[in-house]
Amino acid sequence: MNFCSECGQPVSVEVPAGDNRPRHVCHACETIHYSNPNIIAGCLPVYQEEYILLCKRAIEPRIGYWTLPAGFMENNESVEQAALRETFEEACASVSIRKLYTLTSIVHVNQVQMLYLAELTSPEYAASEESLEVELFHINEIPWDQLAFQTIHNALRFYIEDKKNGKFPLHTVLLDTAPGEYIREANA
Amino acid sequence: MNFCSECGQPVSVEVPAGDNRPRHVCHACETIHYSNPNIIAGCLPVYQEEYILLCKRAIEPRIGYWTLPAGFMENNESVEQAALRETFEEACASVSIRKLYTLTSIVHVNQVQMLYLAELTSPEYAASEESLEVELFHINEIPWDQLAFQTIHNALRFYIEDKKNGKFPLHTVLLDTAPGEYIREANA
Repeated sequence: MNFCSECGQPVSVEVPAGDNRPRHVCHACETIHYSNPNIIAGCLPVYQEEYILLCKRAIEPRIGYWTLPAGFMENNESVEQAALRETFEEACASVSIRKLYTLTSIVHVNQVQMLYLAELTSPEYAASEESLEVELFHINEIPWDQLAFQTIHNALRFYIEDKKNGKFPLHTVLLDTAPGEYIREANA
Repeated sequence: MNFCSECGQPVSVEVPAGDNRPRHVCHACETIHYSNPNIIAGCLPVYQEEYILLCKRAIEPRIGYWTLPAGFMENNESVEQAALRETFEEACASVSIRKLYTLTSIVHVNQVQMLYLAELTSPEYAASEESLEVELFHINEIPWDQLAFQTIHNALRFYIEDKKNGKFPLHTVLLDTAPGEYIREANA
């Protein structure tokens, strides 16, 4: 941020009175501009317990790699509505949400990703503007070396582990800069 | 938003190519400015199972009303870290997180509130710059008519109900414009 989005004058970076962090501050109109994490909402769509719907990304980052349908939550919707919308936009699939399944704070990019465990009740899906291909993968045939993101790897691994004992708790994860590393904060 | 925060030129509101919603667009530098929901993170701090720590707000909105310690999640932290930080800033209290307890999409203000059930292990707390008073209330003596927000009312009611059978599932709520009304989307 270089200019005030309210009045167009240059902003400076400083700690406002009563605050304890640097913000973008406009001295012309006295606006303080805050920057906060964004929410990524999506689904882990399961078909007949053993198949998972993955999308091959048609857009950067990680174009050509497989992911779960997910994207930025928009204003004027709930987290669940965002997850369902993204699943429809990316995979042309309608799913039924079972529960919130992963909550990942991706600290180095200021994102919080929430993935819902969801049922694909019929095998209807298709590629879209955002996905080159959409495919059901058996859990024994996940393309592990072609996954787009660590969060997707984690979610799939959680599902396969949890499926063994039939319990699917919420997995809370803190992901930071080191690629491939993660800390599981707490399960509940 | 009136001006581009990158180059300072006026922005217009239009649906960018390949998008399906209006955004603030700068034609001078081609930046598209997105606006997305913010996360409010906080705790429901419980002491000896029957007492809950509430803060009397020292700042608007709802100054003088009782709330649970919560506030905007900042960049460079996890949701849990934000909840713990807010609890310390507002109530000068250190708590231990038990689990994510409420997830409320507050659609009309574009916020997602996440409250963690937490233990206050010793009764140490104090007023702060953000709280006029901080007090432990027995669950039979909650100041119901002096609560700051519907989300706080919901969380306290969920706790008191759940305490009866000793199970504390995640409560997912969609709150929209009608004051006092809410939809429980799903429990898990």
